[in-house]
Amino acid sequence: MAMIDLYEAISTLRAVRRLRPDPVPDEVLRRVLDAARFAPTGGNRQPLRMIVVRKNAAKQRLADLYAKTWAAYVKFHRNLLEGVPEEIVVKQEKMLAAGDYLAAHFGETPVLVVFCFNPLEMAITDAKLDRPSVVGGASVYPAVENLLLACRAEGLGCVLTTLLCEHEDEVRSLLKIPDPWGTAAVIPIGYPVHRGHGPVSRRPIGKLAFADEWGTAFE
Amino acid sequence: MAMIDLYEAISTLRAVRRLRPDPVPDEVLRRVLDAARFAPTGGNRQPLRMIVVRKNAAKQRLADLYAKTWAAYVKFHRNLLEGVPEEIVVKQEKMLAAGDYLAAHFGETPVLVVFCFNPLEMAITDAKLDRPSVVGGASVYPAVENLLLACRAEGLGCVLTTLLCEHEDEVRSLLKIPDPWGTAAVIPIGYPVHRGHGPVSRRPIGKLAFADEWGTAFE
Repeated sequence: MAMIDLYEAISTLRAVRRLRPDPVPDEVLRRVLDAARFAPTGGNRQPLRMIVVRKNAAKQRLADLYAKTWAAYVKFHRNLLEGVPEEIVVKQEKMLAAGDYLAAHFGETPVLVVFCFNPLEMAITDAKLDRPSVVGGASVYPAVENLLLACRAEGLGCVLTTLLCEHEDEVRSLLKIPDPWGTAAVIPIGYPVHRGHGPVSRRPIGKLAFADEWGTAFE
Repeated sequence: MAMIDLYEAISTLRAVRRLRPDPVPDEVLRRVLDAARFAPTGGNRQPLRMIVVRKNAAKQRLADLYAKTWAAYVKFHRNLLEGVPEEIVVKQEKMLAAGDYLAAHFGETPVLVVFCFNPLEMAITDAKLDRPSVVGGASVYPAVENLLLACRAEGLGCVLTTLLCEHEDEVRSLLKIPDPWGTAAVIPIGYPVHRGHGPVSRRPIGKLAFADEWGTAFE
């Protein structure tokens, strides 16, 4: 089992999009899935399942869907970059290039973990609000984050993708996912082509955390 | 800084609902918020903010709202337990008793962290599907999980709550949260009354993970 300090794992977990096709050993994969299993869910109902896709035919079908969706996303995203300051464009282009690589090699990724959820086993407290609902995600994405952190511990590259939710019907049919289960994320996992994880770039704490009310920076 | 192995933290993170009123040192709180800051978000847009509520007046207003919502939830939940096997009822009643304690002491919790999100900075790929949307949560709940894990490392009790989303208008007005920001979770944080974190109870991996398609247990 790979030992790593929690804070070290959290502060060096990167979106790694260039993955080698080499297989992931079963015992490593099992630890990574186990980490997801321990995550909190509303009322401990555990309304989530993971499908570990390793067969080439299924991976290739998912890759075709992913490539199509990525192409549309990247076109939209690059249009948004017109007139944006050069330094931001450079960073964004770097991310998009890595995304292009992922889309081109999605089917060669050794493992794709598809996270499924059951909305009927969730108390979605923001369902009636006049804004997009997110609360169902409180019983899924903590597990996804645990899985990503475990990949970091094991030296595995990984990235949280949600693009395939746009094609949920096809994904559900391909993987035989029954009603009323939906899909929340697909996580490609594999050993990194380059150095993989490392320091990440985020806003400073004073911009993300407020003291007692909105706008007062937490010092 | 509290060192703990990642897998140890993940496998012993409990929902701790009985919290002492003793204050949390600033430097500890800062590390916990910092852990949330490092989480992945879609396109690294970081469409989330945390409001750290420590003033008594605001905590008491949130506590009043929480107690009201909890009372309705617990009534509904206890009704569901009629006819359920005794061993499950015992477990559920234990959780509900801890929830009653939390609701009765919510305002005395030293820190309440309110997670806010901006839906306009999210690509919500499941927005048009004919089922509850969860994908916006992919840019919020990984940060929440990081914060919970950091609390675990620091010996702080904590629990993911979403009940206050039902009263989002009042919460936004109280904490001066502007349009179009919504609230995704409120995390009470404090030192545990009893032993706090420890082993958790979850379904076995064979029930939560499938190999290649739905229904084939991952062995």
